[in-house]
Amino acid sequence: MRIKDIGEIDLIERLAKGIPLGKTVVEGIGDDAAVIKWRGEALLLFTCDMLIEDVHFRLAEATPFQIGWKALGRALSDVAAMGGRPRYALVSLGIDRRLPVSFLTGVYKGMKTLARRFGVNIVGGDTARSRKLIIDVSAIGEVERSRLVRRGGAKIGDVILVTGSIGGSKKGRHLSFLPRVEEARFLVENHRINAMIDISDGLILDLWRILTASSTGARLYENTIPVSTDAVSLKKAIQEGEDFELLFTMSAREARRFFETGLTRMKTPVTLIGEVMDARYGYRLRTKDGRESRLEPKGYLHF
Amino acid sequence: MRIKDIGEIDLIERLAKGIPLGKTVVEGIGDDAAVIKWRGEALLLFTCDMLIEDVHFRLAEATPFQIGWKALGRALSDVAAMGGRPRYALVSLGIDRRLPVSFLTGVYKGMKTLARRFGVNIVGGDTARSRKLIIDVSAIGEVERSRLVRRGGAKIGDVILVTGSIGGSKKGRHLSFLPRVEEARFLVENHRINAMIDISDGLILDLWRILTASSTGARLYENTIPVSTDAVSLKKAIQEGEDFELLFTMSAREARRFFETGLTRMKTPVTLIGEVMDARYGYRLRTKDGRESRLEPKGYLHF
Repeated sequence: MRIKDIGEIDLIERLAKGIPLGKTVVEGIGDDAAVIKWRGEALLLFTCDMLIEDVHFRLAEATPFQIGWKALGRALSDVAAMGGRPRYALVSLGIDRRLPVSFLTGVYKGMKTLARRFGVNIVGGDTARSRKLIIDVSAIGEVERSRLVRRGGAKIGDVILVTGSIGGSKKGRHLSFLPRVEEARFLVENHRINAMIDISDGLILDLWRILTASSTGARLYENTIPVSTDAVSLKKAIQEGEDFELLFTMSAREARRFFETGLTRMKTPVTLIGEVMDARYGYRLRTKDGRESRLEPKGYLHF
Repeated sequence: MRIKDIGEIDLIERLAKGIPLGKTVVEGIGDDAAVIKWRGEALLLFTCDMLIEDVHFRLAEATPFQIGWKALGRALSDVAAMGGRPRYALVSLGIDRRLPVSFLTGVYKGMKTLARRFGVNIVGGDTARSRKLIIDVSAIGEVERSRLVRRGGAKIGDVILVTGSIGGSKKGRHLSFLPRVEEARFLVENHRINAMIDISDGLILDLWRILTASSTGARLYENTIPVSTDAVSLKKAIQEGEDFELLFTMSAREARRFFETGLTRMKTPVTLIGEVMDARYGYRLRTKDGRESRLEPKGYLHF
């Protein structure tokens, strides 16, 4: 049996099995970041994100600055999705020795610029020889206990919301996105968010992850999904991945308060795109013509 | 100018330049692990280590269990070299989709076994497609402020010591080493260690790193270096790398106390191999015939 036969989701479940976890681990494998009780009140968030040439970017299509920006941005987005602030990062580099030095200083310029924007400290890393360029960023963040948001907290009756717009990563949006750190902090500081994830593998698949973790279903409204003008079609937009928008749920009452008072202060657009349903309802899309079609967890999977 | 033209050491210096670091960063790029003031008294250690197929291991020569063991072991060794205890780890995997699932569960078995041995929690990771197998482990550890050991603390007159024996990694020792976590903790809890590093790129190069960080020179005694019976020659042994032994310095007075009382309690052999000298003396090896030859920082470098 090979990895392609069981797929990414099943593989991760198998690897996670039997991993010993101490009492200080609030959340291990299975959310955007691990959650650890360290000293003091705040929780520590710990995440990593690996970027590989010809999988996540092509040298011909991305500038060094963009590659560095994206590599760090993905890890910061993970921390944001837990409601946290990113603080420290390490960078593991796999590089071909024939690569121009200016290329790598360009990659670092992208990372440093983004790090400065969010007060993140790049504190070290590792380098090794590799034919394909590899950049693996691991990050530490922090979040107050009361503001931690996990995937598994969605409740029946919640509404589903998304920041910004979806789709168009093929046109290069995935190379210049600004991780939604400030938006996430605004949300958790001012509102009760029940579940949150960042869209890395497509709206449909990442919402499915919230639903599975929360043991609920959901109804999505096709006509409200904010599709980017860069997207080829709605269908592609919701399955493409690498949007790095926040996808979250809150009670209808909380949402009313958010739309009345919070949204204008937040600046970034937020759209209500669906509602959390009973698990027996399943996972469905209400199309523009009023019919309902069943959704499968399709999106960007590596295997 | 390409990476091979400037080499690994110069490259890292260039990338580190201009990285903004906040006041909570005690040590950024340039030691075995980054050192961060988190909440509470203890310091947080943060490190990563990337393992790449055909660079750090060959699939034909290593079992999946050994590969996993080595991948985690390297990161734990980094934490130990700072005097700390490893606590949490993340694993980024680059894998070919045609790889058998049993291969990866074997890799994880190696990591889990070692993690259990040292009470380390594997709390998550990331997976991506890659033709060559990539395993990047990042780890968080902790160390009391008073017990932190850095590379740059060696003092003129210190003696230089090493745990275990050196060389023989080509015969597979690099695949089954036990990171010197317990030895490091014994040392920092019972003795004043001035500088420490784990030998990953060869005794000569890693000692040179201590000397450079400490602005000192050193004299090594060829006849005392504990060469493994697996090593081809002394010359190869001191330049080969991947020994993962602790290399450290302490005052002569402290060393006397260590050899009188500490060593027998520690179980692992420790050998005195040299002395820290004035920077003007340089870096030299006293050979068996009593002559002194100049040492260059030669060892395992990726570029």
